[in-house]
Amino acid sequence: MKPSLIVFDTTLRDGEQSPGASMNKEEKLRIARQLEKMRVDVIEAGFAAASIGDFEAIRLVSENIRESTVCSLARANDADITRAGEAIAPAARKRIHTFIATSPIHMEKKLNMTPNEVLEQAVKAIGWARRYTDDVEFSAEDAGRSELDFLCRVFEAVISAGATTINVPDTVGYNLPKQFSHTLARLIERVPNSDKVVWSVHCHNDLGLAVANSLAAIEAGARQVECTINGLGERAGNAALEEIVMAVRTRPDIFPVEIALDTTQIVPASRLVSQITGYPVQPNKAIVGANAFAHEAGIHQDGVLKHRETYEIMRAEDVGWKENKLVLGKHSGRNAFKNRLSELGVILESEEALNAAFTRFKELADKKHEIFDEDLQALARPEVAPEQDYYKLGYSLVSSETGEIPHARVILGVGGEEKTGEADGSGPVDAVFKAIEEIAQSGAKLLLYSVNAITTGTDAQGEVTVRLARDEHIVNGQGADTDIVIASAKAYLNALNKLQTSRERLNPQL
Amino acid sequence: MKPSLIVFDTTLRDGEQSPGASMNKEEKLRIARQLEKMRVDVIEAGFAAASIGDFEAIRLVSENIRESTVCSLARANDADITRAGEAIAPAARKRIHTFIATSPIHMEKKLNMTPNEVLEQAVKAIGWARRYTDDVEFSAEDAGRSELDFLCRVFEAVISAGATTINVPDTVGYNLPKQFSHTLARLIERVPNSDKVVWSVHCHNDLGLAVANSLAAIEAGARQVECTINGLGERAGNAALEEIVMAVRTRPDIFPVEIALDTTQIVPASRLVSQITGYPVQPNKAIVGANAFAHEAGIHQDGVLKHRETYEIMRAEDVGWKENKLVLGKHSGRNAFKNRLSELGVILESEEALNAAFTRFKELADKKHEIFDEDLQALARPEVAPEQDYYKLGYSLVSSETGEIPHARVILGVGGEEKTGEADGSGPVDAVFKAIEEIAQSGAKLLLYSVNAITTGTDAQGEVTVRLARDEHIVNGQGADTDIVIASAKAYLNALNKLQTSRERLNPQL
Repeated sequence: MKPSLIVFDTTLRDGEQSPGASMNKEEKLRIARQLEKMRVDVIEAGFAAASIGDFEAIRLVSENIRESTVCSLARANDADITRAGEAIAPAARKRIHTFIATSPIHMEKKLNMTPNEVLEQAVKAIGWARRYTDDVEFSAEDAGRSELDFLCRVFEAVISAGATTINVPDTVGYNLPKQFSHTLARLIERVPNSDKVVWSVHCHNDLGLAVANSLAAIEAGARQVECTINGLGERAGNAALEEIVMAVRTRPDIFPVEIALDTTQIVPASRLVSQITGYPVQPNKAIVGANAFAHEAGIHQDGVLKHRETYEIMRAEDVGWKENKLVLGKHSGRNAFKNRLSELGVILESEEALNAAFTRFKELADKKHEIFDEDLQALARPEVAPEQDYYKLGYSLVSSETGEIPHARVILGVGGEEKTGEADGSGPVDAVFKAIEEIAQSGAKLLLYSVNAITTGTDAQGEVTVRLARDEHIVNGQGADTDIVIASAKAYLNALNKLQTSRERLNPQL
Repeated sequence: MKPSLIVFDTTLRDGEQSPGASMNKEEKLRIARQLEKMRVDVIEAGFAAASIGDFEAIRLVSENIRESTVCSLARANDADITRAGEAIAPAARKRIHTFIATSPIHMEKKLNMTPNEVLEQAVKAIGWARRYTDDVEFSAEDAGRSELDFLCRVFEAVISAGATTINVPDTVGYNLPKQFSHTLARLIERVPNSDKVVWSVHCHNDLGLAVANSLAAIEAGARQVECTINGLGERAGNAALEEIVMAVRTRPDIFPVEIALDTTQIVPASRLVSQITGYPVQPNKAIVGANAFAHEAGIHQDGVLKHRETYEIMRAEDVGWKENKLVLGKHSGRNAFKNRLSELGVILESEEALNAAFTRFKELADKKHEIFDEDLQALARPEVAPEQDYYKLGYSLVSSETGEIPHARVILGVGGEEKTGEADGSGPVDAVFKAIEEIAQSGAKLLLYSVNAITTGTDAQGEVTVRLARDEHIVNGQGADTDIVIASAKAYLNALNKLQTSRERLNPQL
């Protein structure tokens, strides 16, 4: 029996630090439930000290997740660790993950501390964390550029103090596989009592090597990988969970570890994260891209392909790809709807939420012949707490005619009051956005606008993402509708509503 | 002085094999010009025997590219090699790249040949190729799953026959870095006269390791990497040129090679390929994703970042990122327009094409206050040969109103004749597509619909991609306009026009 590889998912913490990818607590819980269903070992649910919202999200995840360990990040100080301990208190299995920078450039320029001060602080932090749980992880921030001797001293000290997992992050994505595995091997060899802890790695993808570095570290003895769904994360992102897991599963001849993960939940998890964060997955992305198994999908155009296994190293169904299925239609009832949602991992918390989603389902079924799983997921998503929305779409009218200037008229609910706006635009979407802004006067800047069809066919729902920035705040808004202009208006209002409630938060750099 | 690493770009051959990514010869030439400007060493322009269109595209590239070597792929038979030789004949520097499968599964199930027959065929192929050029590359298809002893015998024989580059592809993306570099090292060590040839690798990304495998091979002695812009390619794609190049440049302490490439042309190349093929680049893609240098873009939200170099291993400007610049406005003249296009690498072949583009520019400037480089590239792109289009958009009218069913009316030019269509739809885009189909009756299936804003701001142009399938043919259509509905109509018609001319072609599997 091979030893286990612990899959530590940080989509909800490091993934969320992608510009505009902030999630509310209900969205985080939906993703956490999918991660639990997929049998992820550890879910890093956030950074409790970052904001009240982060704290509450970790708390909500801790109250609901039973199988996976729930973890909060914390800087190596008493206040942060106390917040983390309180946030994870309700969890069945709980971990505190504390960190401090160990590279010369970070210690000097960011922390303004001497190496000895850093070491002492790290040891104290482990003690504080042990008050809340025996499962304590320590990360040396920017380990990739830290001096090996100093790293060994710090790790030895935190292991003595009671840390149970030692994480070696490549914060800036500078390492190469051979070098990174060499570093891991030397650490494991040199640090006293290294066999008493789990060695972990956390890789960033700036040079496209996050997965390769993680895999090389496994060969050198790492037994935990920190990763995110779709490789989401700041800059070029983190190591992609799906790629690490499938490389290990596809090459048991090379990797000396077992993974408990249910790989058939990978594609549903990928879609859920993409939908909630508004971050698309490119078609040529490994494992979860739309083309990744193009041979499977019958797209292969030549006559050369005589035997499937000739070009196949994984099976699409093993990672959760399946044909779009017509699951429900116009005459489907409320129970069928609810059951299918629950099979998809969508749990609507209240009767009102279910009723509202069912009403939207009936409206959609009037416009669209075939309702696919993706449609249902989109239906169930946006309005978790619509009654709290400050801006609501009442009415919109706009036309597109070649040679004419589009003019839009919209009626919005604004904090309960009805307001009308009109504007010309360079296109119908532009006109609607300007009409909304005539009312809202938000001062926000549009950074990104994109549309993906949720399902195929001309009557597909369009899922629109709008990214707005105001001062230092960046938010992504989403909206789905068979009418792209209305979907755009919904997405714009969703972004404005998020700007209303967005808050200052800290983004630690691991 | 370190030895050179030859950058062999196969965007126009292996990249083009992505579903729907077929390009016409003018599009291929535009990309080839950008690759030449970027100082790519070898441009694989296509597979001459695949179709008349491929042959003509290679020929056109060969006639126009002076600095880079132009290469055609050819199976190891006389007919293929003759076509390749004829296609590249006008090139200043020319290469024939011939291949045959060497893995047991491929030899038995696909080729139905014995190992000795494969070896003899390979040797003959080199002789045929040498009639056209001294620069002959040989690839062992599915080398990653071939027996090492047999590979050595084949390589020894083709080197004796005059091959100058030996390529080792990992056709199905099954290899891991350590193993792949070990294979390369053993081949170089065992094959007689291995020092007389350039060793090359060609990696696929099914497990997310194409770049890592390529880099590991360089450390083992490979001196050519085959790669594509944005990692475009079938399934999960090929190794991404930009990631390999930047890893080598960022880590000169590790890689014993020099690269001639002008890295500041990377982002323009990425955008051009994305625009022409309709394949988006995800924001968290390394180097060329919109977030890859988010710190640079001032997006970083926390107050922790005190010194830029703390988190920076590359500079955004070194790979060609720059702020959107307001370059032209309503009152800019024809010369300013032409000069800026030429700075962007866009060369309009005729006075008529320039005039048509300038007219479109003036129309856009009436609708949009600020014209960015991206707008100009979009303007210059679509109508290379509009007079040849079978379907043309004459007029369209549609409205979007909450609670009403959208109805569209379109007038199309169809082979020179004017036709009117009307239809209801579940949204304005759906209504327009159905109105077009009322006229065209194409029988095509819509596989994908996506929109990306070309520039920021609410008056941005939307760039729409529509993927249609009919029988075995899959095409991507593109359209750009400030009006998303009109952009969608243009994209749909562009796809229909491509279906009119699409043809059978072979997609070799390297």
